[in-house]
Amino acid sequence: MSTKKIVVVGGSAAGPKAAAKARRMDQNADITIIQKGPDLSMASCGYPYFVGGVFDERNKLICTPTGVVRDPLFYMKAKGIRALPLTEVVEINRKEHKVKCKRLETDEEFLVDYDKLVLATGTEPIKPPVPGIELEGITTLQSMRDADYLRKIRDEGQVKKAVVVGGGLIGMEVCEALQLAGIHITVVEMLDQILTFLDWELAKLVENHVKSKGAMIVTGNPVTEFLGEDGKLMGIKLKNGTELPCNLAVVAVGVKPSTSLAERAGLELGERRGIRVDEYMQTSDKDIYACGDCCEIRHRITGERMSAFYGDLANLEGRVVGKNIVEGNKTKFPGTIHTGICKIFDWAAGSTGFNEYFAHEAGYDVETTLITALDKPGFMGANPLIMKMVADKKSQKVLGVQCVGPGDVSKRIAEAAVGIMGNMTVEDFCNLDLPYAPPFSQALDALITLGHVMENKLQSRMQGISAKDLKEKLNKKDDMFLLDARGPDEYEEMRLGVGETLIPIGKLRERMGELPEDKSKEIICYCKISLRGYEAASLLESHGYTNVKVLEGGIVAWPYPREK
Amino acid sequence: MSTKKIVVVGGSAAGPKAAAKARRMDQNADITIIQKGPDLSMASCGYPYFVGGVFDERNKLICTPTGVVRDPLFYMKAKGIRALPLTEVVEINRKEHKVKCKRLETDEEFLVDYDKLVLATGTEPIKPPVPGIELEGITTLQSMRDADYLRKIRDEGQVKKAVVVGGGLIGMEVCEALQLAGIHITVVEMLDQILTFLDWELAKLVENHVKSKGAMIVTGNPVTEFLGEDGKLMGIKLKNGTELPCNLAVVAVGVKPSTSLAERAGLELGERRGIRVDEYMQTSDKDIYACGDCCEIRHRITGERMSAFYGDLANLEGRVVGKNIVEGNKTKFPGTIHTGICKIFDWAAGSTGFNEYFAHEAGYDVETTLITALDKPGFMGANPLIMKMVADKKSQKVLGVQCVGPGDVSKRIAEAAVGIMGNMTVEDFCNLDLPYAPPFSQALDALITLGHVMENKLQSRMQGISAKDLKEKLNKKDDMFLLDARGPDEYEEMRLGVGETLIPIGKLRERMGELPEDKSKEIICYCKISLRGYEAASLLESHGYTNVKVLEGGIVAWPYPREK
Repeated sequence: MSTKKIVVVGGSAAGPKAAAKARRMDQNADITIIQKGPDLSMASCGYPYFVGGVFDERNKLICTPTGVVRDPLFYMKAKGIRALPLTEVVEINRKEHKVKCKRLETDEEFLVDYDKLVLATGTEPIKPPVPGIELEGITTLQSMRDADYLRKIRDEGQVKKAVVVGGGLIGMEVCEALQLAGIHITVVEMLDQILTFLDWELAKLVENHVKSKGAMIVTGNPVTEFLGEDGKLMGIKLKNGTELPCNLAVVAVGVKPSTSLAERAGLELGERRGIRVDEYMQTSDKDIYACGDCCEIRHRITGERMSAFYGDLANLEGRVVGKNIVEGNKTKFPGTIHTGICKIFDWAAGSTGFNEYFAHEAGYDVETTLITALDKPGFMGANPLIMKMVADKKSQKVLGVQCVGPGDVSKRIAEAAVGIMGNMTVEDFCNLDLPYAPPFSQALDALITLGHVMENKLQSRMQGISAKDLKEKLNKKDDMFLLDARGPDEYEEMRLGVGETLIPIGKLRERMGELPEDKSKEIICYCKISLRGYEAASLLESHGYTNVKVLEGGIVAWPYPREK
Repeated sequence: MSTKKIVVVGGSAAGPKAAAKARRMDQNADITIIQKGPDLSMASCGYPYFVGGVFDERNKLICTPTGVVRDPLFYMKAKGIRALPLTEVVEINRKEHKVKCKRLETDEEFLVDYDKLVLATGTEPIKPPVPGIELEGITTLQSMRDADYLRKIRDEGQVKKAVVVGGGLIGMEVCEALQLAGIHITVVEMLDQILTFLDWELAKLVENHVKSKGAMIVTGNPVTEFLGEDGKLMGIKLKNGTELPCNLAVVAVGVKPSTSLAERAGLELGERRGIRVDEYMQTSDKDIYACGDCCEIRHRITGERMSAFYGDLANLEGRVVGKNIVEGNKTKFPGTIHTGICKIFDWAAGSTGFNEYFAHEAGYDVETTLITALDKPGFMGANPLIMKMVADKKSQKVLGVQCVGPGDVSKRIAEAAVGIMGNMTVEDFCNLDLPYAPPFSQALDALITLGHVMENKLQSRMQGISAKDLKEKLNKKDDMFLLDARGPDEYEEMRLGVGETLIPIGKLRERMGELPEDKSKEIICYCKISLRGYEAASLLESHGYTNVKVLEGGIVAWPYPREK
């Protein structure tokens, strides 16, 4: 048996995983990782937490759990893998099975043979074509060097105002990190909401939370110019003319797959401009595989190929590639349902599957439900969760779940993700047998409650109205009756103040006379979380009212200013 | 349409849920809840946390989230449901559709008509037939009264030593509550382990944690006598003759379904002596339904009917009953996979599906895997999880997952539970798309890693040995070579000390000469968590060693005393 030569291009997440798996599968293979940057196996998702001071030792980002830095010596000694950092692969010679490499420190070029080549070239940040983008003080957070730079700014404490351009996942993580470092942050997002994996109303609630922490968020108003003096950033100009002074800007408007090497080698790209691979992660060349952010993968629900930039998927894909290059194509990678999460101050925000917007885009006829629920029983010190489910009316399958709030979001998104991958219907979600004890959840987990409310809607036992739709009706001064079903104490403490009538649920049976005489009049019921609102609506319907709706999620999920 | 008369017997969890759901489905129904005890809708799973002082207001156990006590007035006003506490149903007249009730305070008897009757009579504690069981100072934790009694003992601070009889879920929760109150606790379990939803080696790790908190645990040694003076408990006597002084004993050896009312009415019982119901939760009488702990439900994996005493299932079953009694049998209850969890000091312990013991009992040919993994990246302040998976060799389906440790257990058990309900295979677990960000998990969630290791075993890339089997070999002084693949610093800090040789994984390639010459000799590799142990084993196999095993879970999962 001759020694198999495996060359991996890219040393961040997917590449090292593919190399390590190949090593475990074949101890005799000759394995080389070629990495353009200076570091290997960086925990790049950890950069914001290093910048924010959650931990101080930068080497923790490139260490094994026992504290050994993953440098070329470690790779050789512990794994028998040759790792070549600061080395760029400049050309793939597919015919001769060689890659041409260049040592970046010396410009020295050399060739490396391969039997199997793995491309894990990752992404590059998108630089918006905005004047002034080259000014000093403008950075991304894509590399260890960026992380070091931002951490230094944090530690020096000189910068007082900064702007984060882009309100996606990384933008919001950077916002938190710098705001906690005492820098006043403004997030500027060109779209009309942050965090587009969430639907608007949930993103707005997260925005409100971020603002409550002192950071500013500007949406629907892109940066049109970076303003500078002597080559240094002094401020930004927005489309509406506003100028914001700042000495630091972190650009986080997105990334695109790094595919120039693959393109030059004539490998097929997909529609989203990522490297095209089949279910075995094999490119259009049978001896070249790709994994991680540089390639397109399958969407598990639609079957379409798409980009999905997630560190966990990169590792999963790397493992599949490591297996297939050693033992032949035996392992398929099933793809993604776009599960994502981020922590933002005291909240977390997560999504799995389709949100409403993307489900519409994908052509589904959907039902949606939004609820507010506690993550634990009240007596255990519970925190609220605001959750939204999107289901396909036709198949009754759950297409997506979103969750935001101070409660345990990650558990609910994880539960929902597994359910969606298991092709579960709303009915399946209604009867999940989950681990219940008071320190961990309510007797009925918030995700189950979400299923129950969705079932009520699908079976026409409840008609909901979203905060956004109610707000529009209020703006249009629609003729309707608003019923707040809480108690007077609660009403004094917090209320919408939009012309509602307060009738506590316990009094409603005896105070039916205060309701509109016209049984066809539109009535909107709610309470703090809209459980009593739902009970009120059921009662009204039994009294002949024909146009009764429940404000979904109640007051807690109201994203607009309240009277109190 | 005539008014439907619905009578619910039992006012704890399943009964009120059935009543409330029926009310929402039918605002005109005449609904009565008849409850033997004084309270309604008690959060009985919260008793240990009230006893332990997690919260101080007992009414939080019987309140709505907004602080309204769920008393008969609340039920009438807010839900239009008549609730009769301190009232016992003494007889069901199935022919005439009446129940005979007795007010416990006055002995007054009266009849209530029903169209549909719901039995939610719950369980009663098993009292072991041990002499002295009637002494003062012996209690259970089954009712609000018990909770008040134990809370008073906590607050008074007079009792210094107590015994918990039974090391199940409730026993361990009571142990924590009283130990934290400054009472020295001994848990006495007649079986050879606590928490039988776990396999022995995981239960033993939990036991070690409990002991580290100062509580004692005695296994395999049942109580044979409660010792008293003047009618008051003074101590207990164990089977081996040991006497332990104590002034308080909490008996938590289990419960059995309360079925005497159903039996007297001639309703069918199941093999486990719970009320027999079909998939619609309908008993052998078409006008009588049952839900909650009093009835048997279907095991989702085997299809067998069984008891499953869980508060979350009681609520789910109550909801199904509430629907079916109003709209006819439209909703099926799919059953349980026995998902359970409890918090024990700084750890949690959970299980879903089959553990190894019960999988064997059910006749499966299983593969098992045990790993130690971190719940988050090290730089985020991670905590370990010790996890075990049981899979069916034939179908490759995951049959069960157990998890213990200080990390986020509940999330992993929830994920696994949904996967098992989704009929997922080991391969499915290997490629889960879960919500990843450093505050919430490692890039590969611990559950995915568990799947990967299981796949390695199923595909014969790794041979494991359990701590128990290695311990037996050590006791028998088997001839083997033990290889600890960690670094010298780690070895100085913590080690098994069972005759192992330390060769750090990074030195192994150059120190092959120190390994046994006989390539067929049994070699056991490990490290702290056995990842480096696995890499060492792969390397040895590639060098021709034919009998190499990995100690599953590594040193962290070793349940026996260590040298260091």
